[in-house]
Amino acid sequence: MNHGYEFVDDEVVMNVWAPKIKDMMVLRVKDGVKFPMNGSSGGFKSANVRLPPGERYYFLADGQRIPDPASRFQPDGISGPSEIIKNDYEGVKKWKTYDLKDAIIEEIHIGTFTKEGTYESAEKMVDHFVNLGINHIELMPLNQTYGTRNWGYDGVFIFAPSYSYGRPENLRRFIDTLHENNINVILDVVYNHIGPFGNILGILGDYFSKSYINPWGQALNFDGPGSDAVRSFILQNVKYWIEEYKFDGLRIDATHAIFDSSPVHILKEISTTIKSLEHKLGRKIKLIAEDDKNDSAIVDRLEDCGYGFDASWNGDFHHSVHSYLTSENRGYYEDYGNFTDIIDCLKNGYLYNGKYSKYLRKTRGTVFAGSRRKLVVFDSNHDQVGNRAFGERPVSLVGDLKARLFAAIVLLSPFTPMLFMGEEYGETNPFLFFIQTEDNEFANIVRNGRMNEFKDFSWNGNIPDPSSIESFDKSKLSWKLTDNRGKQFIEFYKKMINLRKRIVSDKYSVSSENNVIRIDYEKASVYISFSDKQQIIKQGPKGTRDETAIDPFSILVQDT
Amino acid sequence: MNHGYEFVDDEVVMNVWAPKIKDMMVLRVKDGVKFPMNGSSGGFKSANVRLPPGERYYFLADGQRIPDPASRFQPDGISGPSEIIKNDYEGVKKWKTYDLKDAIIEEIHIGTFTKEGTYESAEKMVDHFVNLGINHIELMPLNQTYGTRNWGYDGVFIFAPSYSYGRPENLRRFIDTLHENNINVILDVVYNHIGPFGNILGILGDYFSKSYINPWGQALNFDGPGSDAVRSFILQNVKYWIEEYKFDGLRIDATHAIFDSSPVHILKEISTTIKSLEHKLGRKIKLIAEDDKNDSAIVDRLEDCGYGFDASWNGDFHHSVHSYLTSENRGYYEDYGNFTDIIDCLKNGYLYNGKYSKYLRKTRGTVFAGSRRKLVVFDSNHDQVGNRAFGERPVSLVGDLKARLFAAIVLLSPFTPMLFMGEEYGETNPFLFFIQTEDNEFANIVRNGRMNEFKDFSWNGNIPDPSSIESFDKSKLSWKLTDNRGKQFIEFYKKMINLRKRIVSDKYSVSSENNVIRIDYEKASVYISFSDKQQIIKQGPKGTRDETAIDPFSILVQDT
Repeated sequence: MNHGYEFVDDEVVMNVWAPKIKDMMVLRVKDGVKFPMNGSSGGFKSANVRLPPGERYYFLADGQRIPDPASRFQPDGISGPSEIIKNDYEGVKKWKTYDLKDAIIEEIHIGTFTKEGTYESAEKMVDHFVNLGINHIELMPLNQTYGTRNWGYDGVFIFAPSYSYGRPENLRRFIDTLHENNINVILDVVYNHIGPFGNILGILGDYFSKSYINPWGQALNFDGPGSDAVRSFILQNVKYWIEEYKFDGLRIDATHAIFDSSPVHILKEISTTIKSLEHKLGRKIKLIAEDDKNDSAIVDRLEDCGYGFDASWNGDFHHSVHSYLTSENRGYYEDYGNFTDIIDCLKNGYLYNGKYSKYLRKTRGTVFAGSRRKLVVFDSNHDQVGNRAFGERPVSLVGDLKARLFAAIVLLSPFTPMLFMGEEYGETNPFLFFIQTEDNEFANIVRNGRMNEFKDFSWNGNIPDPSSIESFDKSKLSWKLTDNRGKQFIEFYKKMINLRKRIVSDKYSVSSENNVIRIDYEKASVYISFSDKQQIIKQGPKGTRDETAIDPFSILVQDT
Repeated sequence: MNHGYEFVDDEVVMNVWAPKIKDMMVLRVKDGVKFPMNGSSGGFKSANVRLPPGERYYFLADGQRIPDPASRFQPDGISGPSEIIKNDYEGVKKWKTYDLKDAIIEEIHIGTFTKEGTYESAEKMVDHFVNLGINHIELMPLNQTYGTRNWGYDGVFIFAPSYSYGRPENLRRFIDTLHENNINVILDVVYNHIGPFGNILGILGDYFSKSYINPWGQALNFDGPGSDAVRSFILQNVKYWIEEYKFDGLRIDATHAIFDSSPVHILKEISTTIKSLEHKLGRKIKLIAEDDKNDSAIVDRLEDCGYGFDASWNGDFHHSVHSYLTSENRGYYEDYGNFTDIIDCLKNGYLYNGKYSKYLRKTRGTVFAGSRRKLVVFDSNHDQVGNRAFGERPVSLVGDLKARLFAAIVLLSPFTPMLFMGEEYGETNPFLFFIQTEDNEFANIVRNGRMNEFKDFSWNGNIPDPSSIESFDKSKLSWKLTDNRGKQFIEFYKKMINLRKRIVSDKYSVSSENNVIRIDYEKASVYISFSDKQQIIKQGPKGTRDETAIDPFSILVQDT
């Protein structure tokens, strides 16, 4: 049975999984009319109700007024009514989709991507991506969270794109415009927990696990009593974003924190669902994991006992380069910092591929035998920047030259590169952690939680207050594209992106000498110097070409 | 690094994983001499100490006197010292091992198997098994629990065979005698939790998971910080029982409650360990799961994405027959009760093979495609009898005739049969849940917990007190073998066991008519009548033989 509503003639069939509720009604907001819902199979309640698109409604759950857990829009946020949304506008029918080998991703947060923080204003920046050669946009989670400012990982209405960024039709148009420009769009979705605030699911049924503890909120119940409906809630969500909004893929947040001991893990079922959607819709849909277990099974095929994802984030590569360039060694960076870590990562995919991690105090990871394209790498992302006390980007930590070197090794690596919004023009504004809530107590808990977290990194004392408007405003991109520095950055990124598209192949080998990393692809050799001195390198196969000098922290490419 | 001690010349090298402890010492009991332990790799503490076999010792963990977590014997129970055990007596070197297809198992609880409740007295009963044709004994957990009377699932020293049953050398001798009589011995081990009482592991290190909730005690930490040492603690335990005591296999308790999100699940690593032990020792070692997920992956080969176990308990078969014969429909029996359930089970292995379970409120199980020998079935076992408020066996619930019918369908099924001690001579003594503890508060918690549990089955009011000596004494076998009824039972079981050995084949088909189940094996057809009337059956392939009458609740076998 579906969650939420379906249109049948001029009515909607409204369903909700609410086995804990005896008396369930739909309340039409405009006139207060109540439509009683009938018990249906498996703990669902159903009603046919006259609610045209645009109409607002609540549920009355044993008298308690709550929004629809499968709400497709909360025009006034988490405490307001739900709105009936009909996405029947046709839009772009065909657009180009890409193989992983051609993917250049940029991660963006709609709220801070532009001054206005809306889909509509983001849409105006599409030329910027086209100009750069970026062909994938990955949106941080859109699902409705408490308040107006949030990274998106506190979502409580997982079908409702946040009202802060615009209306559903604005999101549709934004995606259409990207598609018209041959840019694919990936959505970050959070299935490992539900936000701690405004979460009404527990009132209705066993949406949450009694066996598993998630550090960020209640873990969804994928294997306990009632789990069939929770699984279908999530699988329907997967289909919904892909079909209704035409997303080209999903990035699943913290897959390592999705616990399920069912015979078929929910991640495998998501993978199967994606494959059947691909078949149905006739387009490639990418499934990307954020997996910190370094478990290569996540990208192994289902038939090879894997989870069948297309790709997985590779934190090791970021941490290795970051720690080496910054000399940071607190928190999880204690596991990194040697130059050889970068080489190992380039060669093997994971650095921790069965090695003991001091930070985690356990053996971490598996050997990674798949195509290196299946690992997504980055010099920064929302976590690596925003989960620093002061939200500094690489440019602010190591300066422009080394930050560009970091970007170069990402873009010229055998992995799939992902940029973080703004880095391509050398953005220096931070990306801070921010929330907005009317609840002071909750705001304090969040702030203290973060202060505590940063102890590990010895960032004691005052950190920017997550709930202040300043933390949000400061995180907005400046869009300083046109000054000299901005132009230089843009040119550099364009050059690297074009180079990548031309030369990076699945076949490669890696070596190094005097802190200069050499990656030999089929078409060219790439030299990336981490040396602070000029170094002499021998180009091409030994002895076949003259020696050349490479400047400190620079890149040199020699066609084969 | 090994947990516990190893003998090196006339000393032992004593190791303990105790990263939480700063100052660790070994305390020799006889003279109070303290041996300081040195920090070693990965949170281990080590010392070479002069402790000959038989010597008693404690650990002093930052001054706190505790037994060795890897103690091999607690001669005075959980609060007393540990004793150095050297199992260097050679004993039987070669004995017969069996394929699953030849296995007839009997589950026994040493404490109640004989009046004395010891290995030594159990050893005297070996002829009884030989006489019956039973070739596998499965021992309920031996590991040291609090108190003197316990089923064994509250173990806190998983390397220490309980002192209530005798000394380690008595256990060795018992196993040797069984081996001399060509009987294999399987040990029930508990790796899903550690008993709630007397558990000192948490003092020493992160032995317990912070992510998973186990209903019976703390869940072991197989994937969090510190988990390497916990995994090795368990894997060493697997090897220990097999190598030191020559067990022929392990039955892993509640595998469905062993949570591990590591790349390689601990159950798969146990399976791999068993396979390498088989190779090393040159004998077949059986690995049996108690899995209530009905997930056939547990017995699929590792290379087929399975867990590689030899067999798994099949509760569905028991519940189907039990519920049909008794008309019980409370608690989990609500999912059973139709005659067709028995047929479905016989045909498909699991009844819940992807069907919705009302009791569990979720879809349960997978299709079972493997050999039916990989499912262990029973008409009763410690749980099915002992987890009833009054511990009644089938004979007490449905009478001798139907109880024997139940045994017959178990023994003549295509599955692997397991008896519960005493049923073979029609034991009418109950098998109750019992514990012993000096702690009244804890005893009350246990008693109230059970009363609560039995609400489901509408067994309200007074149930036998688990901590009373009566509950234990009443559960002891009566050994009424020689009266008429006893003799009749024994003859019946012998006949069924011999029949099984002669006729049951992997190839079979199942049909039924008028409540008579027919199982066609290659060598014979078996008719098992659940009808309360005499029925006429057509023997053999249709029309080839005369019609025959089958009495109510009886068995008829016709060679092909």
